[in-house]
Amino acid sequence: MKSFRHELWFEVPARRALINITPEVARCVEDSGIAEGLVLVNAMHITASVFINDDESGLHHDYEVWLEALAPHAPTSRYHHNRTGEDNADAHLKRQIMGREVVVALTKKRLDLGPWEQIFYGEFDGRRRKRALVKIIGE
Amino acid sequence: MKSFRHELWFEVPARRALINITPEVARCVEDSGIAEGLVLVNAMHITASVFINDDESGLHHDYEVWLEALAPHAPTSRYHHNRTGEDNADAHLKRQIMGREVVVALTKKRLDLGPWEQIFYGEFDGRRRKRALVKIIGE
Amino acid sequence: MKSFRHELWFEVPARRALINITPEVARCVEDSGIAEGLVLVNAMHITASVFINDDESGLHHDYEVWLEALAPHAPTSRYHHNRTGEDNADAHLKRQIMGREVVVALTKKRLDLGPWEQIFYGEFDGRRRKRALVKIIGE
Repeated sequence: MKSFRHELWFEVPARRALINITPEVARCVEDSGIAEGLVLVNAMHITASVFINDDESGLHHDYEVWLEALAPHAPTSRYHHNRTGEDNADAHLKRQIMGREVVVALTKKRLDLGPWEQIFYGEFDGRRRKRALVKIIGE
Repeated sequence: MKSFRHELWFEVPARRALINITPEVARCVEDSGIAEGLVLVNAMHITASVFINDDESGLHHDYEVWLEALAPHAPTSRYHHNRTGEDNADAHLKRQIMGREVVVALTKKRLDLGPWEQIFYGEFDGRRRKRALVKIIGE
Repeated sequence: MKSFRHELWFEVPARRALINITPEVARCVEDSGIAEGLVLVNAMHITASVFINDDESGLHHDYEVWLEALAPHAPTSRYHHNRTGEDNADAHLKRQIMGREVVVALTKKRLDLGPWEQIFYGEFDGRRRKRALVKIIGE
């Protein structure tokens, strides 16, 4: 069995953004030299997400509006978590809807994705350096 | 290390349906000849889901009502994604709540599921051929 | 390839609770003797969750309030599932938001977690014995 580990770093200038990281994950697969296995990609921070969906700007707008309706940022005083001095409680909630991680099949040295599947890093509390982890195991 | 790959195909006649695929996944485990490992089952489409819950029709009704309340299909014009000519933005949202994939332990040649755990394919934009992927690694 | 399996048992006295199980999962990693691989931790029950987020009591309060707003327990008669004699339909819904499982990288004999990542068992229908599964594969 072989394994491979790589961190992807981000510093999103806004509070929220969705970033397509499929090319970076595909590069990890290449670098790993692994032909058959599983690829784990997870946010290492608890106010961010890694998820798979469509790279379509209209949909990304819809996610923003929808998540803000389900877990509004303001008023920040509505959340007990924000009494710790943070203002990011909503980001902890939004990330649970979008998910922490994806596991993708690795087949014949490639990410085994459906036709429209793209891997995203979802930032919900940006403006600082944060990372995602790519871990691959297989043979 | 051994690996196994199989696609499950669906053509749901309605827009939405929940289909129990536990027997098909169990057959993959048998066919793989793998005794100990991990089983990944994921939707290959971004308007569908693979998740684990109860095979109880009342609960499936509740999911339908609940998801439609959290991410309504209509009016379709409320979603920017639908300006691309699609009418399935709600399906992209519903799928994030229900999840893209499950990872199940494989122990002693069997799916290592709890007493009520059943694996479902959740279709939120049907009426066309779509698939889920089963990938197994182990020994 | 090596594999390891362990069950964690819970009997939560209340209907709902969030329990930090990071130390128990770390002990499994030690006991496994595996240096590089993947760690799956999943609820074996469909009204419970395993997820990763912050161990901060204010946030846990916020999750409780938020999940109860998105999927209220009462009136129990609003859910068809409860016509089976259960009163836990809301727990099946809440668990979909929080997720069934996490997959964590295992690197150099340790859980490869970000600085604030903690693994939780989320109980949404307690007051009876239930379990989570830890399955590790690697080398």
